[in-house]
Amino acid sequence: MWLGDDTAVLRLDRCGGGRLLLATDAVVAGLDADLALTSLADLGWKALAVNVSDVAAMGGRPLHAVVTVIGAGLAQLRQLYEGIVQAATHFGCPVVGGDLSGGEGLSVSVAVTGWCDGQPVLRSGARPGDRIWVTGALGAANAGLRALQARGTASLAPDEEALVLAHARPRPVVAAGTAAREAGATAMVDVSDGLLSDLGHIADRSGVGFHLADVPVAPGATLEDALAGGDDYVLVFTVSDGTAPGPAFRAHGLSEPVALGYCLPDPTQRLLQGDAVDARGWQHRLG
Amino acid sequence: MWLGDDTAVLRLDRCGGGRLLLATDAVVAGLDADLALTSLADLGWKALAVNVSDVAAMGGRPLHAVVTVIGAGLAQLRQLYEGIVQAATHFGCPVVGGDLSGGEGLSVSVAVTGWCDGQPVLRSGARPGDRIWVTGALGAANAGLRALQARGTASLAPDEEALVLAHARPRPVVAAGTAAREAGATAMVDVSDGLLSDLGHIADRSGVGFHLADVPVAPGATLEDALAGGDDYVLVFTVSDGTAPGPAFRAHGLSEPVALGYCLPDPTQRLLQGDAVDARGWQHRLG
Repeated sequence: MWLGDDTAVLRLDRCGGGRLLLATDAVVAGLDADLALTSLADLGWKALAVNVSDVAAMGGRPLHAVVTVIGAGLAQLRQLYEGIVQAATHFGCPVVGGDLSGGEGLSVSVAVTGWCDGQPVLRSGARPGDRIWVTGALGAANAGLRALQARGTASLAPDEEALVLAHARPRPVVAAGTAAREAGATAMVDVSDGLLSDLGHIADRSGVGFHLADVPVAPGATLEDALAGGDDYVLVFTVSDGTAPGPAFRAHGLSEPVALGYCLPDPTQRLLQGDAVDARGWQHRLG
Repeated sequence: MWLGDDTAVLRLDRCGGGRLLLATDAVVAGLDADLALTSLADLGWKALAVNVSDVAAMGGRPLHAVVTVIGAGLAQLRQLYEGIVQAATHFGCPVVGGDLSGGEGLSVSVAVTGWCDGQPVLRSGARPGDRIWVTGALGAANAGLRALQARGTASLAPDEEALVLAHARPRPVVAAGTAAREAGATAMVDVSDGLLSDLGHIADRSGVGFHLADVPVAPGATLEDALAGGDDYVLVFTVSDGTAPGPAFRAHGLSEPVALGYCLPDPTQRLLQGDAVDARGWQHRLG
């Protein structure tokens, strides 16, 4: 029903060459977050962050947020709001309005406006031969979730705390999205559902396959976390062969992106080091 | 937590003197609408319409909508979507994105962007002596709800069908909001919760009282419907004494607004033909 990119691109008259962006995403307690493992403040942070990430994945920057909370009592609302405001401050995306309502179940819907000075990067622009890059290592958030599920917050090892933080307080990379756009990204997506799933969106919309030669795995995470775990909120983007995105990233004071592989002409070919993969991992492991 | 006007006013660089507006509102099945009396298509229409009305109440026009649906099955989604698209078409406010999620309870959150060519009209600008106007008669929606509750859709009298339609398919008055702004409105609000409640928002925010000399009651409705019934989505606005809003309305091909009364310097004085009223009606009827 609402397919395509997660963020809408809108042209406003009298606003020069830029574009207004508009993203919306909801988080539902019990579904997007287990409240036994996630605080309401973390849920609030995440509700805002996932929308900021959608704007970042276009090469835009967030401007403002409106928030609708359904089914929260006053004490719950205070905790949610704490995380929402922390995220709004962190991402420079003030909450300018909202709505509170009763209802069964607790959910937070956020809509974020953004601005893109140039042409926003869609999912549909990748071409065969384009190189695939990622803005950082993958899998930390899923490894953190596994640690929480195994041991809860009380008995985490010190090296697990950074992983849990990656899960609980995802940090979309707005400047990296701008750098990728300025570097000439032909397509871009944020990794919310997992690398293979989200890169699959670029492949589906662009009509290309892909070959992944190498996947940077975050310390403490497994390759499985990196391929199929969600909530990393790094950005995966494509550029035409011969384009080096590093200088644009350095110009923003960012570390350089990591090469993942390249796009293939056959949209049915989705390969990791020569093996077929689907959104959940290696195909030969399935069934 | 999110007080003030229902719509945020945003200034975008490089966009001339206009203002971007951003409104969000949710409708929750069972709370904002009784699904025994309201179709899901009507619920979808309403979810969009209430946001359009918030933009209209600033003197703006709607641009785009994003929609988040939580807890709807596929068949329910189809029906909801039918009403959402009908409203989007009617109000010229296309749905440009959205999110679907599982969850307990069915709710629809909508965020709408709007544009205002001039200075948006807030709730806080009414001054003592300002005249109070309304863009149309009041009470039809509540009378329609009463008819539905009493008899259901099957056995409505012919003259009740228009009232039920006013309840089921509210029609925000976007052009009237623009006309009121152009006429120099000092404050404006849409009647979603009831005249006395919503005019109370202007009074609260502006620090004025009010005296209502006359209230236009829709055919088939009672004075009680007009004062305390919600969902009429007419606009109530104030203009300085001596300003006649009629010409601006005629210039838009609209019928003229109706004079309701005037603002008082004492914010505790809220009077209907000399009697004290509160948001629910006459104060002496309460307790």
